Amino acid sequence: MDGLPIALFDAAILGALSEDLGVGGDITTNATIPSGEQATANLVVREPGRVIGLDIAARVFQLLDPGCKFLSFVADGDAVQASIVLATITGEARALLTGERTALNYMTHLSGIATATASFVAAVEGTGARIVCTRKTTPGLRSLEKYAVRMGGGQNHRFALDQSVLIKDNHIAYTGSISEAVDRVRSRVGHTVFVEVEVDTLAQLEQALRCRIDAVLLDNMSVATLRDAVEMVDGRVVTEASGGVRLETVREIAETGVNMISTGWITASAPSLDIALDWPT
Amino acid sequence: MDGLPIALFDAAILGALSEDLGVGGDITTNATIPSGEQATANLVVREPGRVIGLDIAARVFQLLDPGCKFLSFVADGDAVQASIVLATITGEARALLTGERTALNYMTHLSGIATATASFVAAVEGTGARIVCTRKTTPGLRSLEKYAVRMGGGQNHRFALDQSVLIKDNHIAYTGSISEAVDRVRSRVGHTVFVEVEVDTLAQLEQALRCRIDAVLLDNMSVATLRDAVEMVDGRVVTEASGGVRLETVREIAETGVNMISTGWITASAPSLDIALDWPT
Amino acid sequence: MDGLPIALFDAAILGALSEDLGVGGDITTNATIPSGEQATANLVVREPGRVIGLDIAARVFQLLDPGCKFLSFVADGDAVQASIVLATITGEARALLTGERTALNYMTHLSGIATATASFVAAVEGTGARIVCTRKTTPGLRSLEKYAVRMGGGQNHRFALDQSVLIKDNHIAYTGSISEAVDRVRSRVGHTVFVEVEVDTLAQLEQALRCRIDAVLLDNMSVATLRDAVEMVDGRVVTEASGGVRLETVREIAETGVNMISTGWITASAPSLDIALDWPT
Amino acid sequence: MDGLPIALFDAAILGALSEDLGVGGDITTNATIPSGEQATANLVVREPGRVIGLDIAARVFQLLDPGCKFLSFVADGDAVQASIVLATITGEARALLTGERTALNYMTHLSGIATATASFVAAVEGTGARIVCTRKTTPGLRSLEKYAVRMGGGQNHRFALDQSVLIKDNHIAYTGSISEAVDRVRSRVGHTVFVEVEVDTLAQLEQALRCRIDAVLLDNMSVATLRDAVEMVDGRVVTEASGGVRLETVREIAETGVNMISTGWITASAPSLDIALDWPT
Amino acid sequence: MDGLPIALFDAAILGALSEDLGVGGDITTNATIPSGEQATANLVVREPGRVIGLDIAARVFQLLDPGCKFLSFVADGDAVQASIVLATITGEARALLTGERTALNYMTHLSGIATATASFVAAVEGTGARIVCTRKTTPGLRSLEKYAVRMGGGQNHRFALDQSVLIKDNHIAYTGSISEAVDRVRSRVGHTVFVEVEVDTLAQLEQALRCRIDAVLLDNMSVATLRDAVEMVDGRVVTEASGGVRLETVREIAETGVNMISTGWITASAPSLDIALDWPT
Amino acid sequence: MDGLPIALFDAAILGALSEDLGVGGDITTNATIPSGEQATANLVVREPGRVIGLDIAARVFQLLDPGCKFLSFVADGDAVQASIVLATITGEARALLTGERTALNYMTHLSGIATATASFVAAVEGTGARIVCTRKTTPGLRSLEKYAVRMGGGQNHRFALDQSVLIKDNHIAYTGSISEAVDRVRSRVGHTVFVEVEVDTLAQLEQALRCRIDAVLLDNMSVATLRDAVEMVDGRVVTEASGGVRLETVREIAETGVNMISTGWITASAPSLDIALDWPT
Repeated sequence: MDGLPIALFDAAILGALSEDLGVGGDITTNATIPSGEQATANLVVREPGRVIGLDIAARVFQLLDPGCKFLSFVADGDAVQASIVLATITGEARALLTGERTALNYMTHLSGIATATASFVAAVEGTGARIVCTRKTTPGLRSLEKYAVRMGGGQNHRFALDQSVLIKDNHIAYTGSISEAVDRVRSRVGHTVFVEVEVDTLAQLEQALRCRIDAVLLDNMSVATLRDAVEMVDGRVVTEASGGVRLETVREIAETGVNMISTGWITASAPSLDIALDWPT
Repeated sequence: MDGLPIALFDAAILGALSEDLGVGGDITTNATIPSGEQATANLVVREPGRVIGLDIAARVFQLLDPGCKFLSFVADGDAVQASIVLATITGEARALLTGERTALNYMTHLSGIATATASFVAAVEGTGARIVCTRKTTPGLRSLEKYAVRMGGGQNHRFALDQSVLIKDNHIAYTGSISEAVDRVRSRVGHTVFVEVEVDTLAQLEQALRCRIDAVLLDNMSVATLRDAVEMVDGRVVTEASGGVRLETVREIAETGVNMISTGWITASAPSLDIALDWPT
Repeated sequence: MDGLPIALFDAAILGALSEDLGVGGDITTNATIPSGEQATANLVVREPGRVIGLDIAARVFQLLDPGCKFLSFVADGDAVQASIVLATITGEARALLTGERTALNYMTHLSGIATATASFVAAVEGTGARIVCTRKTTPGLRSLEKYAVRMGGGQNHRFALDQSVLIKDNHIAYTGSISEAVDRVRSRVGHTVFVEVEVDTLAQLEQALRCRIDAVLLDNMSVATLRDAVEMVDGRVVTEASGGVRLETVREIAETGVNMISTGWITASAPSLDIALDWPT
Repeated sequence: MDGLPIALFDAAILGALSEDLGVGGDITTNATIPSGEQATANLVVREPGRVIGLDIAARVFQLLDPGCKFLSFVADGDAVQASIVLATITGEARALLTGERTALNYMTHLSGIATATASFVAAVEGTGARIVCTRKTTPGLRSLEKYAVRMGGGQNHRFALDQSVLIKDNHIAYTGSISEAVDRVRSRVGHTVFVEVEVDTLAQLEQALRCRIDAVLLDNMSVATLRDAVEMVDGRVVTEASGGVRLETVREIAETGVNMISTGWITASAPSLDIALDWPT
Repeated sequence: MDGLPIALFDAAILGALSEDLGVGGDITTNATIPSGEQATANLVVREPGRVIGLDIAARVFQLLDPGCKFLSFVADGDAVQASIVLATITGEARALLTGERTALNYMTHLSGIATATASFVAAVEGTGARIVCTRKTTPGLRSLEKYAVRMGGGQNHRFALDQSVLIKDNHIAYTGSISEAVDRVRSRVGHTVFVEVEVDTLAQLEQALRCRIDAVLLDNMSVATLRDAVEMVDGRVVTEASGGVRLETVREIAETGVNMISTGWITASAPSLDIALDWPT
Repeated sequence: MDGLPIALFDAAILGALSEDLGVGGDITTNATIPSGEQATANLVVREPGRVIGLDIAARVFQLLDPGCKFLSFVADGDAVQASIVLATITGEARALLTGERTALNYMTHLSGIATATASFVAAVEGTGARIVCTRKTTPGLRSLEKYAVRMGGGQNHRFALDQSVLIKDNHIAYTGSISEAVDRVRSRVGHTVFVEVEVDTLAQLEQALRCRIDAVLLDNMSVATLRDAVEMVDGRVVTEASGGVRLETVREIAETGVNMISTGWITASAPSLDIALDWPT
């Protein structure tokens, strides 16, 4: 998982299993299927997309049955067609049935994010613009959701508030001016911190460009204004467009020449990808 | 929150804050805004929908600034129009800026679920059918997502695998027949357990109805078959339709006379509702 | 463990070990026994009963010494005579001595519950009545205690407050009448929820039977009244007797024809079963 | 609570509440009782005994309703008669009903331990012997159970394996002799560590008394042998009798002149004390 | 605490208290001091330095006694002389004595770090160089230790491995060249990520400067080489000196003109500052 | 690790890794080194000392790469010379680079403590005095730090406040006299509890020796007074010297004939030992 050790997710996975097993466990499976019964089932994707979460799914089943074998045929981030078998799982029938929903809840959610990201990336192909996610993530799942964005071909904006500086209108309001805000920041943060300023107008942009900053976030600007902003920046700092970005509008935005286009939609509103556990009949 | 004590969510909220603050905290805010500075901001919804998560948002800010005042003008589940002020928050400016994203990530996600639920409920109005969610929830958030469904006017299916029995095709395959599966279940589970059987065909339905069950889940049936199934059941057990339910098709399904219509879409794929923190200028 | 994955109990087992090891560990064993020394010991039951917790005990020793072998000769729930060897454990002598008390504390407590349950079940044999536990469980141990009841031949009442509805006198007092309470419940809870009403008198029972309920809890009734109640119910709903149930009185209660007899005694007051770790001399 | 800060138990109490509330909460109470409704109820003990856990109960209700008032009329450890009102609780009706079982599960269990301890203490009154508990405690509850023993008039043996040394037969077997075991211990443990040796015979006792030890545990000795042992020790070290101690036999043991009598029964097998939440009618 | 909410540290503080209280609590205090007894004590620093951790100390006492008053006369980061009273604490005598060591363990450790940092900062005064900490922090305490560095006048290097890129010799070895390493990084990481390269020689520095990087870490260079390196860089990127930095050598290093001087000594080896809790006699 | 099971430290190690990996992981390593690439590196100590933490380091790498091999050439507590290879690690190159800092942060800190302890122990060699640590430990790390002291040849004072009694001046002040304080303690604590009294003067010592105590802590006495105190005690109880103990003064103190010398310096102020991960070139 891109260098993220699976052991770091064990507590969350056990929490998800606990949420689904409650006090009594899978009472249907336990009543109908004898302990020790072995089975094989296939993880199948039902619609085209990008698949994410194979290691998570494997761990879900392994936590329920340490002897379980999980054989995957694709890797996280792969583009797949409908009906493709993603993995074959062999282990205790009870473990497969009991873990099915938890494994799928991770996979369908994360694959939905990667698939949405990939569609935005495809829409801007050739323009040089990069698709970037935001901090609009589901509480408790940021690490995995940011990973899904990367696997979908997108880039990550700040992982957290301590990673880099993003001076917004409120910060400016409290300090009086962009330059004062930048000065305060530069005198306090470490040298490894990237500094970006959000601007709503070309007038603000002009002020921002006079400061020692690394990027500007061009917020909610029209395509025409974006084009002017890119011209005004003239490559001196990174440009990022943000606000109301949708799949239908993203290419037009990209063609203004901005470097990055950020959107919360891909993490906060992407529909899940349809994946299921199929049992050979 | 419908009898769910907020204290039970503190660990998760602190986890979400920790995810966003990392090791160093909100370095932008800390550099630009003096400690102790007071501020007031408004939670505003930007599109019509059902709002959920006011207590969660209040707690986010209270954990950052115990002296913070959170005054809400609506209640969880209320239908709101665009631009409505949901709450006014007064407290340390740093706390408001630092907690903004975490509070909104909860609210926009849960409100999206309630809003989607309400639209399904509205679509079946007058038919007598109830909209029911599934176990397709985000890992770690089931309690809140099920709550959002209730507040959106829907009903909850099983909270967890130990709440009630749902005999699916795999369980039947392992036991040989529906009647054998039901017998095994009835002899093992407690008397307070509700038993439902999933059937794909009218032939299976016929077998199921000969057993001591409380409900049938009619899976992936056409509208015509659903109508026949409802007639065959004739009120003896609860009927639940499931599979590929969408907003466009839900009324047609409801008009077959089924009692419940379950859909994973409202929890797993509902887009988030646009809510923001506005600062008076 | 009846489909409950052992991994879900790791945190609790480590917590129990931590409680017993403190900051410095087993200072007696560490001072007297060299690291790496291997040993074999037997888990032996000292009095007849039902044994529970073999997987838990195995995990305790495995967490202390991953190379430890735990060979069990009985299964959870088995009825055993005094002096039977339940399992043989081979591993580091230090691990065996250090883990002994924690493993036994789980086993003796849970086996006590299963043994008590089995004695109640035996007492009502042939009457058709089932022995049911309650929510009177030790904080933090409900899942294992409910499991011990099942392994002792009993059935589980509600796992938790969200599993099914039990309308008690206070709920009725707040709503004004049984029928109003049932109506409120039916309009709010999901279709998979079982509804039971507690009644103290035959008059209340009569009211309850007019509502759409699934069971009645006949609370603290005399045997004579119980018999009348069963007759009045006449098989329309499940009947459950509760209140002051003791081993001496349970058969008499069962012979009234009630379906279920619930008792908190088996989880809250059962004495522990005497189990020890014996070292070959 | 004898200097144990209640905040240290919050995580456990929230865990117990979570175990009982599951994903959906108290669905009966939430459906029947309006949010905000206030109520008053009394904690009443139904049989004579020693009451423990008032602070824990208060915290349970406070975590569910921070505005809740808990007014207690007795203190932890007080001896009470049947039907005494222990405390009056005023707060949200929902919180009272939802928290009732969790609060009572703590109180009835701990009060059972204190009551059993007090009966053993009473049985040895005037002999000079002290009643001591063991490490036979319920996993996760040792701190509270040891506290209940103290409040019942007993004393605590080792809190954990790192507190003091207890050399048992296995430790002796591995080292070859009592003196070798004591030597190894004395050369390794800190100077604040108390050293006790378990002996089964007078011959072993004689060996033990030749070593630098602080106490002897006289294990499973007959009353006659105990008397001889006490005489042989002659006040040089603390004497502790252990093994098969029951309420019927404890005075006879005490009259042998031993200093301490330890029993696992008071923590591992004491029946719970009957306490209930009564609602004024 | 510089925008870090104290609530985020509650779990760690309770863990520290639990480590010190064990199963039985402060048995000395509980035996000698009556519950409810009030007291006042002073936090006093015994040697000059920078004080850190007042909010942490306040929370320790507040968790033990919610009614406790903590009145501080200095703020985190203040330079103080020996014998200064830092704060006066009034509350339960038991809470003050029980919490003393935990509160002091936090304060003396963190104040030691701030004091060490301040001495390095003082040593380079006027040179323009900044003192920077590293990731050599105590496991579990990074957030507080980095905070102590800031309060001591230093700056923070990377908070964590995901904050910015630092390409070291091993990364270069695996990719073949500095330029290849930088290229791989630039194509993968988000636009807000700062990129620094570690170089050991002027030859490597020359290569690094040909790449798109933001800073160079000049590792273990002699003062003479550092001077040459600074000249070669000529202000194009940030320069950071690292390796064997000690208080005696730091000014010499600073005078080479480097921008940043990083040292693990201030977090990993700084002696604690002597602070005590004094009781008025 | 001296009978402390490594599994008990997993949660802390994962916490330390999480602190260093943040949301995004080791972005430098992940960008430059392909997944699956194998590597070998050596743990090397750069200065003479006592090494501690090999099992912890092994676990760090194993949690990142379960297939990792960790071959150690020394054992915890061994005295090593500079440049010695402590262990060779073979596994995924990414895991080695990602885990390096966390593993080293544990090892350098704990080895620093053991090394400092060993130097104090060496300084008192032949005097019969033992070096003892205190409760001045880093929050969250007491178990490991006390272990490091033992491995460095020192002894542990109290692990926690519940292990033994230490009556200090404040406890005496509240009770009125040493004898009253000792009486209260003796009547309340269990028989396995060791009782020590802190005295500042010979007059206090005289009072203390009249009570039933096991040790006296001679606090902040001059060497001359210590000598008198030892003479006055005359072997009746254990003597412990404390206060301002430094490496330069410790032998002089030891030569007064005290049994134990306790110092917080070895845990709270010992500089870390320089250990690094070297990569074969």
